[in-house]
Amino acid sequence: MDIAALRAAHPEHWMKAAAIRTLTLDAVAAANSGHSGMPIGMADVATVLFQNHLNFDPKAPLWPNRDRFILSAGHGSMLIYSLLYLTGYEEVPLEQIKNFRQMGAKTAGHPENFLLDGVEVTTGPLGQGISNSVGFAMAEEIQRARFGKKVVDHYTYVIAGDGCLMEGVSQEAIGLAGKHELSKLIVFWDNNNITIDGTVELSDKTDQVARFKASGWHVQEIDGHNPEEIDAAIVAAKKSKLPSMIACKTHIALGHAAQDTSKGHGALTNAEQLAEAKKNYGAEWAPFEIPADIKSQWESMGSRGAETRAAWEATFAGLSANKQAEFNRQLAGEAPKKLSAVIRALKKQISEEQPKVATRKASEMVLEVVNPIMPETVGGSADLTGSNNTKTGDLGIFDPENRAGRYVYYGIREHGMAAAMNGMALHGGVRPYGGTFMCFTDYARGAMRLSALMKQSVVYVMTHDSIGLGEDGPTHQPVEHLAMLRATPNTLVFRPADTVETAEAWEIALTQTETPSVLALSRQNLPTVRTDHKTKNLVANGAYVLKDAEAGKRQAIIMATGSEVEIALAARDILEAEGIGTRVVSVPCMELFDAQEETYRKKVLPAGPVRVAVEAAVRQGWDKYLLGERGREQKAGFVGMTGFGASAPADELYAKFGITAENVAEQVKALL
Amino acid sequence: MDIAALRAAHPEHWMKAAAIRTLTLDAVAAANSGHSGMPIGMADVATVLFQNHLNFDPKAPLWPNRDRFILSAGHGSMLIYSLLYLTGYEEVPLEQIKNFRQMGAKTAGHPENFLLDGVEVTTGPLGQGISNSVGFAMAEEIQRARFGKKVVDHYTYVIAGDGCLMEGVSQEAIGLAGKHELSKLIVFWDNNNITIDGTVELSDKTDQVARFKASGWHVQEIDGHNPEEIDAAIVAAKKSKLPSMIACKTHIALGHAAQDTSKGHGALTNAEQLAEAKKNYGAEWAPFEIPADIKSQWESMGSRGAETRAAWEATFAGLSANKQAEFNRQLAGEAPKKLSAVIRALKKQISEEQPKVATRKASEMVLEVVNPIMPETVGGSADLTGSNNTKTGDLGIFDPENRAGRYVYYGIREHGMAAAMNGMALHGGVRPYGGTFMCFTDYARGAMRLSALMKQSVVYVMTHDSIGLGEDGPTHQPVEHLAMLRATPNTLVFRPADTVETAEAWEIALTQTETPSVLALSRQNLPTVRTDHKTKNLVANGAYVLKDAEAGKRQAIIMATGSEVEIALAARDILEAEGIGTRVVSVPCMELFDAQEETYRKKVLPAGPVRVAVEAAVRQGWDKYLLGERGREQKAGFVGMTGFGASAPADELYAKFGITAENVAEQVKALL
Repeated sequence: MDIAALRAAHPEHWMKAAAIRTLTLDAVAAANSGHSGMPIGMADVATVLFQNHLNFDPKAPLWPNRDRFILSAGHGSMLIYSLLYLTGYEEVPLEQIKNFRQMGAKTAGHPENFLLDGVEVTTGPLGQGISNSVGFAMAEEIQRARFGKKVVDHYTYVIAGDGCLMEGVSQEAIGLAGKHELSKLIVFWDNNNITIDGTVELSDKTDQVARFKASGWHVQEIDGHNPEEIDAAIVAAKKSKLPSMIACKTHIALGHAAQDTSKGHGALTNAEQLAEAKKNYGAEWAPFEIPADIKSQWESMGSRGAETRAAWEATFAGLSANKQAEFNRQLAGEAPKKLSAVIRALKKQISEEQPKVATRKASEMVLEVVNPIMPETVGGSADLTGSNNTKTGDLGIFDPENRAGRYVYYGIREHGMAAAMNGMALHGGVRPYGGTFMCFTDYARGAMRLSALMKQSVVYVMTHDSIGLGEDGPTHQPVEHLAMLRATPNTLVFRPADTVETAEAWEIALTQTETPSVLALSRQNLPTVRTDHKTKNLVANGAYVLKDAEAGKRQAIIMATGSEVEIALAARDILEAEGIGTRVVSVPCMELFDAQEETYRKKVLPAGPVRVAVEAAVRQGWDKYLLGERGREQKAGFVGMTGFGASAPADELYAKFGITAENVAEQVKALL
Repeated sequence: MDIAALRAAHPEHWMKAAAIRTLTLDAVAAANSGHSGMPIGMADVATVLFQNHLNFDPKAPLWPNRDRFILSAGHGSMLIYSLLYLTGYEEVPLEQIKNFRQMGAKTAGHPENFLLDGVEVTTGPLGQGISNSVGFAMAEEIQRARFGKKVVDHYTYVIAGDGCLMEGVSQEAIGLAGKHELSKLIVFWDNNNITIDGTVELSDKTDQVARFKASGWHVQEIDGHNPEEIDAAIVAAKKSKLPSMIACKTHIALGHAAQDTSKGHGALTNAEQLAEAKKNYGAEWAPFEIPADIKSQWESMGSRGAETRAAWEATFAGLSANKQAEFNRQLAGEAPKKLSAVIRALKKQISEEQPKVATRKASEMVLEVVNPIMPETVGGSADLTGSNNTKTGDLGIFDPENRAGRYVYYGIREHGMAAAMNGMALHGGVRPYGGTFMCFTDYARGAMRLSALMKQSVVYVMTHDSIGLGEDGPTHQPVEHLAMLRATPNTLVFRPADTVETAEAWEIALTQTETPSVLALSRQNLPTVRTDHKTKNLVANGAYVLKDAEAGKRQAIIMATGSEVEIALAARDILEAEGIGTRVVSVPCMELFDAQEETYRKKVLPAGPVRVAVEAAVRQGWDKYLLGERGREQKAGFVGMTGFGASAPADELYAKFGITAENVAEQVKALL
């Protein structure tokens, strides 16, 4: 690569891009860790994007109609930190660049949305950012359909690397974006032909241009170091009616001794080579030093966005007060005030009618009353609409002809759906929920964990939540998934027992602003167990006394969730008939119960009585309620699964695996 | 669709295919559940494949050089059950067809490899079968390179649906197969344009033909109901030097009222419509009745395979006794006798040299001595070779030019890697292991669960197993993953503390025949804690006393795994110095400890002393050792993580999150 020729061809551009390159080298050297090659390789693309196109305002990082910039190749975090520092975001002063990857710094190893407003998305796990971007672009279309082009009209730009494109989730995202003709989505592919193990050819020969075209994308191929080509490509991409992929031929670690090698991917810290690279760049600046004129050129880039923002604010101020309030409410993720009244009314009706329905059906009943009063909800399913019961009558289908549609046919793409929902939630203005079979949370894990880490209150509607799904057999029967999800930080896992609990769980999920929720819902019909209407949301306590002992002294407590609450109640009937006082505790959400005051928790689970828990899943996670803490005596048992399920009708499976009222009652008696 | 014309054009073929169709309709109707449309739509393809091409022998379902037939669209399980019954597999008599999806039947809702020898792979979770097939084809190449074309030379055929192709994992598989020019892999795409939610266009516009071509596949498009076109396409695919995809235009539920609709995907049970379909087929047979002449035509299909098998057996008998024995040993998944001696020697050496290395490095040291004596191992990494330390010097790289290569550059494809390893293990003759960062087990979950369910002893080398990876931050730091993996049935989760334990864990993993193993390995250096050489494999006990109390009475037990064993030992030093007798128990594998006799478990963890566990992960899963069972008093504490990690140097993170010897010692003292 003839660096001198590149410099000579576009000297002013070159020096601006050099600022990204030197900051990257200096920060990685200081941290003695990080990834140098990608920010250096993509500096030209980023410079042109920020200089000529991206609408951003460092003084107002979160203004609603900004263009979104997503660094899907998150290991190249110094690219985004350099950009934030250079353009003058107050949250990234030079000190933050100097503290790259250090304790307490906002400039973490990978970009974290919860540390920096200028970071739209937490990236690093490859393939996620590009998949989130599809959700951003969908949310933008939906929001525009709702509030008009004057209020919502921005682009979503993505930088993705070979790693992002090799991850399977990217195919799901590409397919979804192509189908929905998300024309405001523009992806730059950092086509440097290098992965950690060596050249891309070691593991892949895919023609990415042909692959994107096959899914309906507009594709261009350019020299990623030529600012004129970069600019022209962005102009063309903005005009395209399809999502755009710009294949940018680049050199990883351009101008460094490690250029074009897999070594260039990681931390380049050798002092001599660093000096040599800076010399090549014509930027022999002291560590972390950027000449004032270059810094000021960068800072002036925000003025376009600032002007756009000012104009936008004037437009927004012209909206009716109601419309402004509604826009702001949806953007803040605040549930409408009506929500609790609507939920209460449904609960009252259910307590009276006492339907025997599956909780997946119960969930639909809730959505039927919620969706009309929450225009921000966007539902969907990974091709199991009729099974997940996620589609209500009024939503309309989101597609290129109907951007106001609020239901998404995600296709057989659990991971892509979850990642798109993360993107929608991060974009703001919409509240996504999506369904699949609970067992296939396995496919979506990569994105579900990020919902929790990124503090996005996505709702996962996971139906067919146990062996109760019956004949489809062990590939479709979750047994470890409740434990897995409960092990995940910042995630509410609900397993409601009936329609009333389902309504309460939905109310909690829809009022979260920093926590995703998983609703584990039954395939099979369940009786209404909350027949006594209570205004209060009992699920909010996490666990509560559903039915207390009557026959004299309380000798046993049976805990259960979801479809097994019915079994617990039947076991109680057996025991009470034998004079054994038995309390049944419904445990719809362990996380919320654990967050209660100790006095409440002790009231629900007093010391003394034997305890048995019943859940059609593995025991892991229950011992904290079953076994004795700090020397307190406790007798306990568990009725559930110890291995995979089997293919047979649901009732027979419950009998085969011993998850029956009789067995629960026997366990209690054996412990007494 | 003019069924009469189809019948008239190929009457003999038609009636054979009709047998699949009527059996499917009858079995689904009897079960009142299942999926009718796909077996009916793909009956013609399957009939031609079995009639003219597939080498199989119903009398010897597992003969090593058979062609493999994988039903990736596993919901269409009645296709495979019909084929097994019709061709005369003894394990599928008519009774099994009649008991489709019933308790105890081998004809489960989805095909299960552990129930039927004629089922190569457990399928149902979409995208898995096609991804497994890549591993089958790789294993075949590797085995052929080792034993020659006369011993190993077969095809792997796959039927995949739209769901399989929409799942992201399929892209990883397609890319891997294309790169490796797996010419003996032939995929039939059931191109029926229908998914559960409706037509494919609802969620996807991808040109699948262009997509496969983009990744280097040979692609043909045919009428999936025309036996001549089907046959010609298979002939051409067999000749191709590339993996082949045959796009078969089909009609889901052909000839049934639900034809070409999403309703046709599921269970077609309406009696009138069933009768009407049979009439259309010209097959108005009683339920489950197949005319004898048609049954006998099907049964005769196995003769080609039987002849091939006989010839193969003669060839095989001509090999040297050593070569035969080695082939059989590798196929049976038996470790060589030398293995334990080699591991013992390494352990002895390590106990003496006491290196301070990361357990990921320790794992490499083990592989350096194991790979030379186990020619069946096939290693790899999802583009983290230098970090996972999975590549040893002698392996050679698997690629089109070197089929004897035993190392696979899987690319950035964790899910595809895991699925390919499942395929290799299922094929037999090779023993796959593969690496990535432990956090990215999230991406591979879909396939890892199937390793366990399918009883395949794949080894997952999961490095960077905690906050100890440092600066890369919370996206890369597992905290819930140990709990998640431990919750999974039939999975051994090892977290070794040093090189000796790593060697012992590898020995156990490499001698499994029905259980996958996960090795959770540190990024950071760890001291040798097993300095006292023991011939016995102590990790096999799951947990054991690493260092007992010395200072008088034993007052405390500290349990730890992996990198935290060092911390436990340091905490013990503090406590012993204060006269508090403290035992340290290393817990490298909970599953193996739980499988020990109660007397052993009580010896390791006697009642009385306070217990503290330390692990840089969430507590879930530890309570069974910490809290008291059945009224036994127990004081206990846990030192670990309660949320996500952060980006900073590893030592600082351990201090920040309180995972220190001082804190462990304090916890013990607070409990005393």
